[in-house]
Amino acid sequence: MQPLANIIWVGDAATGFLRLLDQTRLPTEEAYLDCKTVQDVWDAIKRLSVRGAPAIGIAAAYGCVIGAQNEELDHAIEHLATSRPTAVNLFWALDRMKRVVPPTPDALLKVAQAIHEEDRAMCRKIGEHASVLIDRLPIQSRGVLTHCNAGALATGGIGTATAPMYVAREQGKQFHVFADETRPLLQGSRLTAFELAAAGVDVTLICDDMAAQVMREGRIGMVITGADRIAANGDAANKIGTYNLAVLAKHHGIPFYIAAPSSTFDLSIPDGSHIPIEVRGPEEIIHGFGRQTAPADIKTYSPAFDVTPQELITAIVTERGIIQPVETETVAAMVRD
Amino acid sequence: MQPLANIIWVGDAATGFLRLLDQTRLPTEEAYLDCKTVQDVWDAIKRLSVRGAPAIGIAAAYGCVIGAQNEELDHAIEHLATSRPTAVNLFWALDRMKRVVPPTPDALLKVAQAIHEEDRAMCRKIGEHASVLIDRLPIQSRGVLTHCNAGALATGGIGTATAPMYVAREQGKQFHVFADETRPLLQGSRLTAFELAAAGVDVTLICDDMAAQVMREGRIGMVITGADRIAANGDAANKIGTYNLAVLAKHHGIPFYIAAPSSTFDLSIPDGSHIPIEVRGPEEIIHGFGRQTAPADIKTYSPAFDVTPQELITAIVTERGIIQPVETETVAAMVRD
Repeated sequence: MQPLANIIWVGDAATGFLRLLDQTRLPTEEAYLDCKTVQDVWDAIKRLSVRGAPAIGIAAAYGCVIGAQNEELDHAIEHLATSRPTAVNLFWALDRMKRVVPPTPDALLKVAQAIHEEDRAMCRKIGEHASVLIDRLPIQSRGVLTHCNAGALATGGIGTATAPMYVAREQGKQFHVFADETRPLLQGSRLTAFELAAAGVDVTLICDDMAAQVMREGRIGMVITGADRIAANGDAANKIGTYNLAVLAKHHGIPFYIAAPSSTFDLSIPDGSHIPIEVRGPEEIIHGFGRQTAPADIKTYSPAFDVTPQELITAIVTERGIIQPVETETVAAMVRD
Repeated sequence: MQPLANIIWVGDAATGFLRLLDQTRLPTEEAYLDCKTVQDVWDAIKRLSVRGAPAIGIAAAYGCVIGAQNEELDHAIEHLATSRPTAVNLFWALDRMKRVVPPTPDALLKVAQAIHEEDRAMCRKIGEHASVLIDRLPIQSRGVLTHCNAGALATGGIGTATAPMYVAREQGKQFHVFADETRPLLQGSRLTAFELAAAGVDVTLICDDMAAQVMREGRIGMVITGADRIAANGDAANKIGTYNLAVLAKHHGIPFYIAAPSSTFDLSIPDGSHIPIEVRGPEEIIHGFGRQTAPADIKTYSPAFDVTPQELITAIVTERGIIQPVETETVAAMVRD
C-alpha cells in the first residue's frame, strides 16, 4: 500500500524540476507545487509546503540540482540553508550535495535520488520491524493510536510511526488507527488522518482529550509515535501531547512505542533533561484556525515538545531493529556505530 | 470578586424583561441580548446564548414572568420546556413556576429571583468550602488546572469548579489558574479563560494535550472540574477530557477534585457504568474552528462525556461540605436527605 507521492522529480537532470505535494493546502485540496527555481524550493520549505525533517532534506537536495542547472550551485546551497535553520537533516543533505564531484546536474540528481531512496528504505525497514507489533495486538483491541504526523508526508517513504500501518495494510493484517488531532497545529487532523485515509488505511480521528476515554473503552491495543530527538538512555522528545499518551497508556496497561531512525538518537546527552523545550507564542492557540477562539489578550503557555521518560516506553523501533527494554545499554548496543 | 453578570432582570415584574450575556458572541464580544417575549427566551436557550444547567433553569424561570405579563403562562411553560429537552434543571425550574399561586407577574418574579438567589448562594458555599483546597496548594505549585466551563457563565453565581477561584481571589490568596481549551467545543478557551480574565483572576490557557507536560514541570498543585452526574459511589460523569486529567493527576501525585451541588448526585445508580455516554457527530471535530481542519469524509469518534472512577477523585466539594474519601458511605452521609 503506497501513500500519496509527496516529493517527485519530473524530467531529466538538465531541464527537470521538483514537484511537491503542497501540505499547506491539505486536507481540503490535493494540489502540487512545481519548483523550477531555487527560490521556489526555498519558498516551499519556508512556508511549510514541505515539512518533516527527512522530507525537507530530500527537497533541498533536489533544489541543488535546480541550482546547478543554472551554474549557481554554491549560491543555491547557501540560500537553501537559510530556509529552515533548525532542520538538522537540511544541513546534512546540503553538505552531502556540496561534496559531489563534478557538481553537474546529472551527478547531483543521482545523489539527491540516493538520499531520497535511502530514506524510503529506512522507513520500509522500520515498518517491517514494527509490523510484528501489530501481530501482538490483543484480539479485542486492534486499535493503534498515534499523535502528530510521523507519516509519509514527513519523509521520502512510508513514514516512521505510520510505517507499520502501511506494511500491515499490505500484509492484510486486521487493525485500525485512531489519530489524535494534535493541538495546536492539528497535524493529526490535517496530515495523518488525510494520508492514511488516502492510502486506504481504516482511520478514525479523535480530539486529544478523548484518548483516555477511548483507551478505557478497550479500543486501543498499542500507541506508536515518532520522535524528534532521543537521549542515550532512551528518553524521547516529540510533539507536545506524546508524554500525555505515554502516561495514559501505562495507566491502562497498553504498550507505548516510539518509531524513529537511528539518526534521531543523540548519544551525547545522557537523558531527556538535557533537551531544551521550545515554547511557542499565543497565536496558534488563540487564532487556531481561521477564527478567534479565546480572548485576544489571554495568557497562554505553549510548549511545542515534551519528553517521554524511558520507563514509559515499551520499545523503540529503528531501521536496525527493536530496542526493548529501553535502557542506556540496549540503546547503545543498537545505535552505536 | 464578582464575575460578569450573565442573567439580569431589568425593570419591574409587570413590564420588565430578561437581559442575557450572549455566550455565542464570546470571547470576541461582550454583547447582551434583551428577551422581551417568551419566544426570545426560548431562542436564547435553543441557540446556546445561555447555557449550563443552572443558568438555563434561571433563564426559563424569568421567561415565565414574561409569559405571565401577557396572560399566557401555561403556554409559556409548555413552550419553554421544549427549548432544551435534556436539561433537568429546566424542568425543575418550570415545575416550580407552575406551582406559583396566584400566577401574577409579581409572584412569579419573586420565585424566579429566589431560584436565582438560591443558585448564587449554592455556588458561594461551594466556593467557601473549596477555598481551603487552595490553602493546601504546595508553595512551589500554586497552579489550579480546570477543564471545560463549570463557571459563573453556567450558573447564577460564581460557578462550581470556578467558585474557589473567585473566593480565593477575594481573600487575596496566591494562586493562578490553567484552563484547558477543551476540544471540541472549546468551552475552556471561549468561556472559562474569558470569565476568569474578566474577573481579574490570573489565568493561562493551554491546549488539552499540554496538561501532562505542565504537570511534569511542577506547575500544577491541584485539578478541579465540575460534574454533570455523580453515581452513588462517587463515579463522576463530566465533559470529555476530565478522566484524562484524573489519570494524569494520579500519575503526578496531584489531588483531583470535583465541585458540584448535591443535586448532581443520582443515588439511584450504584456506579458510573450506569451512565450512558452521548457520542456526537463529526462536524465539531472536522469544522471546529471556522475552517475545515480534517478531510471532509473522515471517520470520527466523539464521546461528549467520560466517567472518572471514584478511586481517582481525591474529594468532591458540595454546598454542604467536602466528601473525602469518596466512597458510597461518605457520599450517602453527605447528600442523602
